Amino acid sequence: MTVPPDATLADLGEFGLIEALAQVFPAAEQVLLGPGDDAAVVAVPDGRVVVSTDLHVDSRHFRRDWASALDIGHRVAAANLSDLNAMGGRATALTVGLAAPADLSADWALDLARGIAEECGLVGAAVVGGDLTGADQLVVAVTALGSVAGTPVRRTGARPGDVVAIAGRQGWAAGGLAVLARGFRSPRTLVEAYRRPEPPYAAGPQAASAGATAMIDVSDGLVADVGHVARASAVAVDLRTDDLEVPEALHAVGAALGTEPLRFVLGGGDDHPLVATFPPDRPLPDGWRRIGEVAEGDGVTVDGTSYDGPVGHVHF
Amino acid sequence: MTVPPDATLADLGEFGLIEALAQVFPAAEQVLLGPGDDAAVVAVPDGRVVVSTDLHVDSRHFRRDWASALDIGHRVAAANLSDLNAMGGRATALTVGLAAPADLSADWALDLARGIAEECGLVGAAVVGGDLTGADQLVVAVTALGSVAGTPVRRTGARPGDVVAIAGRQGWAAGGLAVLARGFRSPRTLVEAYRRPEPPYAAGPQAASAGATAMIDVSDGLVADVGHVARASAVAVDLRTDDLEVPEALHAVGAALGTEPLRFVLGGGDDHPLVATFPPDRPLPDGWRRIGEVAEGDGVTVDGTSYDGPVGHVHF
Repeated sequence: MTVPPDATLADLGEFGLIEALAQVFPAAEQVLLGPGDDAAVVAVPDGRVVVSTDLHVDSRHFRRDWASALDIGHRVAAANLSDLNAMGGRATALTVGLAAPADLSADWALDLARGIAEECGLVGAAVVGGDLTGADQLVVAVTALGSVAGTPVRRTGARPGDVVAIAGRQGWAAGGLAVLARGFRSPRTLVEAYRRPEPPYAAGPQAASAGATAMIDVSDGLVADVGHVARASAVAVDLRTDDLEVPEALHAVGAALGTEPLRFVLGGGDDHPLVATFPPDRPLPDGWRRIGEVAEGDGVTVDGTSYDGPVGHVHF
Repeated sequence: MTVPPDATLADLGEFGLIEALAQVFPAAEQVLLGPGDDAAVVAVPDGRVVVSTDLHVDSRHFRRDWASALDIGHRVAAANLSDLNAMGGRATALTVGLAAPADLSADWALDLARGIAEECGLVGAAVVGGDLTGADQLVVAVTALGSVAGTPVRRTGARPGDVVAIAGRQGWAAGGLAVLARGFRSPRTLVEAYRRPEPPYAAGPQAASAGATAMIDVSDGLVADVGHVARASAVAVDLRTDDLEVPEALHAVGAALGTEPLRFVLGGGDDHPLVATFPPDRPLPDGWRRIGEVAEGDGVTVDGTSYDGPVGHVHF
């Protein structure tokens, strides 16, 4: 079906939108029953399903003037796919709930769906169902289902002496967000990193096979999320700033905005790298970089001292 | 932990609320890993998972002045558990996303969670995870996972000659909604039916074993939802009003409001009964009542003629 370029959700109606969406989401082998019935059915060959839900609220988790609908689709899907990555798993299916004002452009909603479908394509996951409803504020609710080959890697298993390592970019999205918030559109690499994160989808299963003792994805902030691992494992973590990569563009943004660039790396979210702990006697898998160490105690320190910067996103 | 009676979500904070919620949701055998990590892990012994997502938006799907938080918890869980019921399945796990204003009472949120947990308890499902975030408008996003013993019953299999049957109450919630909308609080049975629907959770699996050819749950309206089955199956359905139960309380409400009471039954949603089609040569399972017949053609008729009343909820 063809959607007129100026059509709103109200013009198209729920069923018109569902019909248009059906063309956006391709079929996939693991989907035994896709969208269109009371529920979908997904194959789970190993007899257990890994599941995670995230809500993405307009003007809080994304801004429609800072990123395209396609980018926002990528972002919201990436956040959920990353949660499964952080268990050492891989997503196979997503459901997407969209609560939206009736005057939202139908094209915008379809581009959002395309972005979600494209991001899912990176790991072979399929959108299998969802819900559409009116609301005053745009909210996207994503649930990812998937599987994990071996034992799911929790936050609880870090032991004193373990090496702390990271896979993926960290601090880039925060740098992009900082410049967007001040009305700039560059450096391009950082703005793009904010608009469309690139979680290291191979790194989670890789870390699981390499014997990672604990793992988390950094969505709220490096110190904050490492803090969750420390608390869940009842250990202390020290991060070493010498080991944290600060890309040239972040230095530039820091200089322009009068901010210590390391703050983006330590406090920023939205990039969805993985942080994992590994036994000290093993080589790290490809793509993983050492950034600190686990010790007895509690809390997160940076270069041995407590960190006084903003540590993460406050949800309420 | 003790939550002060006047505390808001902002007072409690995300992690305070999560800690309080942890006490609301009991563990369950099928939950291999519950809330608190990046994702949950649920056992799916038969190698496939049935999944459905619904969004519930404040002032659209529920009103906080018309039902308690506990009731609303029951309602939102029931809507999703019912989707799996309509496939012939049973829910084993729910994720719940809550987007809420920071000044929402923490007690209200905990009562919502208690209602969800209680409704889940009716079918042995467990809440395994979710997400909490701030938003201008309260939105509850529920995803139910579950299993189905035999072949999932879709909307597509109704054949000419099949019997159309219903299990569960229908029209009660619409009657309750109609009186609440006019500022009344009685008849009590209907108001309670609106506040806390009672989906017939045994009826879905029962119909599946009895050879139901198609099935749906009535959430938007009887004629509207039977219309989905007719369309998906490429058949016509005729409903017979003589076979539709109209409880005494609905007659009373109809008389008081000047509304034909059958309109609540034909157009009302929110009760979550099941409607299924069965081959004509078999006895209906217990609790199922014949309400019509499948024929060649398309569309839904009532006593052989087209129905001109409101047929269901318009989402945009």
